[in-house]
Amino acid sequence: MNIAHLKNARSLSGESLYDAMIRKGYSPGACRLEHALDFMELHIEQGRVLFEAKEPLGVVTAIAAPTRLKVTVLGRQDHSGATPMDLRKDALCAAADIILATEAAGRDEMRFATVATVGVANVVPNALNVVPGSVELRIDIRGIQRESIRRTVGKVQRAIEEIAASRGLSCATETISSMDPVTLAPSMIDSLAEAASGTGVPFRKMASGAGHDAMKVAPVVPTGMLFIPCDEGISHNSAENASLNDIALGAEVMLRSISLRSKHLSTADRSQPFSKL
Amino acid sequence: MNIAHLKNARSLSGESLYDAMIRKGYSPGACRLEHALDFMELHIEQGRVLFEAKEPLGVVTAIAAPTRLKVTVLGRQDHSGATPMDLRKDALCAAADIILATEAAGRDEMRFATVATVGVANVVPNALNVVPGSVELRIDIRGIQRESIRRTVGKVQRAIEEIAASRGLSCATETISSMDPVTLAPSMIDSLAEAASGTGVPFRKMASGAGHDAMKVAPVVPTGMLFIPCDEGISHNSAENASLNDIALGAEVMLRSISLRSKHLSTADRSQPFSKL
Repeated sequence: MNIAHLKNARSLSGESLYDAMIRKGYSPGACRLEHALDFMELHIEQGRVLFEAKEPLGVVTAIAAPTRLKVTVLGRQDHSGATPMDLRKDALCAAADIILATEAAGRDEMRFATVATVGVANVVPNALNVVPGSVELRIDIRGIQRESIRRTVGKVQRAIEEIAASRGLSCATETISSMDPVTLAPSMIDSLAEAASGTGVPFRKMASGAGHDAMKVAPVVPTGMLFIPCDEGISHNSAENASLNDIALGAEVMLRSISLRSKHLSTADRSQPFSKL
Repeated sequence: MNIAHLKNARSLSGESLYDAMIRKGYSPGACRLEHALDFMELHIEQGRVLFEAKEPLGVVTAIAAPTRLKVTVLGRQDHSGATPMDLRKDALCAAADIILATEAAGRDEMRFATVATVGVANVVPNALNVVPGSVELRIDIRGIQRESIRRTVGKVQRAIEEIAASRGLSCATETISSMDPVTLAPSMIDSLAEAASGTGVPFRKMASGAGHDAMKVAPVVPTGMLFIPCDEGISHNSAENASLNDIALGAEVMLRSISLRSKHLSTADRSQPFSKL
């Protein structure tokens, strides 16, 4: 992030991020991520893998990135009582086919940790006595393997075309966003795993389905990430909760990992100053 | 409708229907439907059967009545990136199963002119990065044969139970309304069909999928109904349109039917006064 970005980003009160950093004692001009030796992030999993497995730690190997599609199904709005079944172009039935095809595409790629979700469906006119005329769907496909993501997106897109053709209606698909998954640094994964082993608790190496700050830092310095479980996998919600024990364990593993890494650092590395991030 | 109803029904300006009828020269107290010899209604079809068949007339044999269900699918809201496919209870996928099962149930009963529609789907939280936690569906099932309606409702309800069981989530089904279909008077159907034949235009006997005033009158006096086509089957919409030719043809057939019926009326019948309806 360059100085211009920091000066343009403003709070609701109008203060720029640049001014706020100076007010808090940071030196934005001197804040260079490239000077960091490495970066690690501790986060709740935001999913139910560790929670259901009753494991208190996950060492993150990669961070999934979403490809997002907007699909507009255009059928024909008709009277629900007066239109025989064979004269309909029901947009909601076509949308239902697409929802199930998306689920099937995600399930097909489960072994690659790819997921596919229809999170949004807006029905028009959404009235009890009208055959739906159009439906907007929004689809979120995420994975850590580019090939698997590509296959999943392809399967969903082909299914949409087939459904539109077989039902005689039109579906317009737009890619809203498409990001690449991020692989974390093997050296960081190793030291976090070694540190976790040292505590004696069960842990696993796993991908992160959610996005994190670490994915922005990873292209610049070696980056690692540690997960602790959260209740029922709930996040972004007032019911979000992680136990103090798990938080403390996560902090301990980070400290152990820093200690392990500092032992391995060469003298040259040690002479390089850490910047305030 | 009794006098109390007429006095209680008020326009936006506050005038009761009773007062408005008197102001227009009607005598609400003397207005008894039972005194009518018969009743007929001319209406656009509100569907696309006549429009697609290019037939200008339909003699209505029965009026379908809706059975309406509200289904609440309760799954589990999860992070769309962080929740593997096999750990989900996706309410929208279950809703998609129900939408397609409803369509299939309607198609199974097509030969009985029964239709089944999911017109409403409300997804919660309806966010791109969240596996849907719950979905409310509203289902409209209509037909003119009680047995066929009963079978269709049963198929939909059994499908909902099976989908809930196989997906491990819960579906609560509530019957919002359930009305009986109305069969129109054979004598009225015959005289309207005879009158239609007299004009030489193609016509068909058909059921009405939409509800009409005639269904409220039918239990009291012999009731008939005539359809004319409307463009693309569109109604309840500013694009609704019927041709002046078809409207005039409908009026002509009603007049011919009245003429035919008056020839058949006995002297006793003729002595009975028509009331202003």
